[in-house]
Amino acid sequence: MRARDLVEELPTVTMDDGADHVARLIAEQRLPGVAVLDKGKPVAVLTASQVVRFVVPEYVQEDPSLARVLDERTADSCADELAKHTVRDLLPSHGSRVPLAMVAGDATVVECAAVMARMRSPLLVVADGKGRDGVVVHGLLTASHLLEVLLAKRIVKN
Amino acid sequence: MRARDLVEELPTVTMDDGADHVARLIAEQRLPGVAVLDKGKPVAVLTASQVVRFVVPEYVQEDPSLARVLDERTADSCADELAKHTVRDLLPSHGSRVPLAMVAGDATVVECAAVMARMRSPLLVVADGKGRDGVVVHGLLTASHLLEVLLAKRIVKN
Repeated sequence: MRARDLVEELPTVTMDDGADHVARLIAEQRLPGVAVLDKGKPVAVLTASQVVRFVVPEYVQEDPSLARVLDERTADSCADELAKHTVRDLLPSHGSRVPLAMVAGDATVVECAAVMARMRSPLLVVADGKGRDGVVVHGLLTASHLLEVLLAKRIVKN
Repeated sequence: MRARDLVEELPTVTMDDGADHVARLIAEQRLPGVAVLDKGKPVAVLTASQVVRFVVPEYVQEDPSLARVLDERTADSCADELAKHTVRDLLPSHGSRVPLAMVAGDATVVECAAVMARMRSPLLVVADGKGRDGVVVHGLLTASHLLEVLLAKRIVKN
């Protein structure tokens, strides 16, 4: 069984998609995050907690006791606020991004696990090819689905 | 609406539960992770990718190309291997743990988001009280569920 046979039907988004669209995808499908494509090429994983992070003003993140004041004020809805931005705006700067964990379509289950473990990523992108036009994204693999596959598998530990 | 009204029916585990039990919980319920209790007190969040990490030998994490060799060998099943260990064994050392994001039962939605954002955690523990016997865990909140609540909510950004 290879990575391309294991992938789940999970959505990807582009850098120019609305931030509200990706937030809804994650919320409705209870995803740990989504893969972000730029010109067809996977460039990042955007996690659910990164979207939450974008919604909360920085001064409130630093002092959550201020959150109670916010709750009492009237303002744009969170969805309206997100609708003003794109996925590009949501992504943290390069240094703080969740590293893009990616394997080729013919990677084995243990290779998938090794890459996910090393990158500490909740999502793995399974894709072949390189360059602007040549990338074929087979799909995504979540850590929980990979665990399900691993539990049924014989591998060596040590 | 307060944190205790938002919590999801998600499982918790104890330090002495079997590692295979927690792996199955995460796999079957497609969880981003579980909260770990020690003597009734929440002490850590164990993420799906941390369990995957435990399953993969360190030398394979460092060089995933070695994974193909592993796949060809016969050995204990991954589940058998996990069954030899407890949650305590799975948890990374204190320095590498996902910090425990926790709020009180009466925390507001924005407070929940602020704490989750600051701790960059995929899971939030909602609990009241302190000390060995005094902690009441109301439940857990995933980032994706919190996003769903936020999308319906009016808050101030800026």
